[in-house]
Amino acid sequence: MTLADAGEDQVVAQLIKALPNDARVLVPAGDDCAVVRHGPELLLLKTDCVIEDVHFTRASPPRAVGWKALCRAVSDVAAMGGWPGDALITLAAPPALEFSWVRGLYAGLRRAAERYRINVVGGETARSLGGIFISVALTGSVPSGRYVTRAGGEPGDSIFVTGKLGGSLAGRHLRFEPRVEEAVWLNENFRLHAMMDLSDGLAKDLPRLARASGVGFRIDRAAVPLNRGCTVDQGLGDGEDYELLFIVAPEEGARLQAAWPQAFPKLKLSRIGELNTGTAVDGVPGGYDHFRR
Amino acid sequence: MTLADAGEDQVVAQLIKALPNDARVLVPAGDDCAVVRHGPELLLLKTDCVIEDVHFTRASPPRAVGWKALCRAVSDVAAMGGWPGDALITLAAPPALEFSWVRGLYAGLRRAAERYRINVVGGETARSLGGIFISVALTGSVPSGRYVTRAGGEPGDSIFVTGKLGGSLAGRHLRFEPRVEEAVWLNENFRLHAMMDLSDGLAKDLPRLARASGVGFRIDRAAVPLNRGCTVDQGLGDGEDYELLFIVAPEEGARLQAAWPQAFPKLKLSRIGELNTGTAVDGVPGGYDHFRR
Repeated sequence: MTLADAGEDQVVAQLIKALPNDARVLVPAGDDCAVVRHGPELLLLKTDCVIEDVHFTRASPPRAVGWKALCRAVSDVAAMGGWPGDALITLAAPPALEFSWVRGLYAGLRRAAERYRINVVGGETARSLGGIFISVALTGSVPSGRYVTRAGGEPGDSIFVTGKLGGSLAGRHLRFEPRVEEAVWLNENFRLHAMMDLSDGLAKDLPRLARASGVGFRIDRAAVPLNRGCTVDQGLGDGEDYELLFIVAPEEGARLQAAWPQAFPKLKLSRIGELNTGTAVDGVPGGYDHFRR
Repeated sequence: MTLADAGEDQVVAQLIKALPNDARVLVPAGDDCAVVRHGPELLLLKTDCVIEDVHFTRASPPRAVGWKALCRAVSDVAAMGGWPGDALITLAAPPALEFSWVRGLYAGLRRAAERYRINVVGGETARSLGGIFISVALTGSVPSGRYVTRAGGEPGDSIFVTGKLGGSLAGRHLRFEPRVEEAVWLNENFRLHAMMDLSDGLAKDLPRLARASGVGFRIDRAAVPLNRGCTVDQGLGDGEDYELLFIVAPEEGARLQAAWPQAFPKLKLSRIGELNTGTAVDGVPGGYDHFRR
């Protein structure tokens, strides 16, 4: 059965059945808007999208595409030091697409939502004349005064990354785990000066953080943690790592390196360099530009 | 200059300059997430999208496309009885697109945001291998206990619509005015049993409201307010009217019809029928199905 066979109302009715919704959701998906209770914390807002033949192919398992679509936004909420809250899904798909593909997509979205206790409270389906397009909007919450931007880095601060970098296209880009628990633990226990998630590659993302902070940086190429079989250039340039890049004062960095292995014994933590008084454009070629290639 | 010429960072930097942001916005577009103060009211959440060759063409003025993209979601917030708050924009565009087109799009988004006092707090740009795709996510707020769903209609209630219907494809679909002030005034002064905005046409949307309320309906075809030159079937089926469809008890309807002309002298209000104990599928052919045509 294709989307055209099913028709819009049946497609929507099927998709919104069994979406994860907790007691904060007063009006779930299906009305003009969702209505959600919201506490005294600050609201985080993020949107992100995945596009056929850019972020996945028709051969990618649809469950993995759904996981990726939601987890990309989750990773951004984590990068602010927050917890994800409520998600909205926009799907544009060609009418001839098999309905089972879309059900698989939603199964993946649901799995990610359940993993991170996210309510999926709405969405939009529309006809696409090209490929499949999925956009996710996500709220999050963070205690007042505890959010972490890209702008607080200072010269002399240490630069850290979680996990290993490079080679994501081989499959990890579809099944990465956003570092939510790690980010919240870091934010609760350390004074983070700046943080972001690595989506376009360290070579592209670190200069962005440095520019936002008004500082330069120096990285030790030998210290860049690499996935098996990857060169340093791949580690810097491939992108879609979804690891945390964050900045702390040197003494805080030493305390962190002592505490990390007990908190997250399975996840590598690397100090890869430091911020300085230079300008942000220093010497890291590569990274992903959405319009340039 | 095309998007490929400009490169992603320059495209984004240009677009997020001068976005409307009020003092509630602690971290605007450009970081991993936006951070927004949020009061004690309920949060409304909505996403919606416009797609090239479905909702607009390359020949449509980009400012009008931007206006439409945001105002569609604004119309949904109004249909809950709420005020719009903060918007996120996702844009997927082919690299060969002229940058000036995207700047025009953002000029239209900005104009709509200023008109309805919306903060544009973030977005995402990505490469499209097909046409242009714009998705908008919008928050809104509504006082606790005052939101209006589609589900509260009762047999015997009166069915009203604002404005005139039909013929939107001639141009009005790009320059409609979401009925925000009208919806809030209705919600503050009358007991609305149910409300929604008309996006897919009365023939498609009224049965949805009736199904949500668990009732049937009867409409008086002669009472359907029509735009100049439109037949009743066009008024029922064309869609993209973005007028309010709402339900009140009969005595409340009479009070409303007396008060409306003073409050909104330039906008027609029509009582087009009533809810009954039938089933929702009664006799309104037409309306727009996103996957069927």
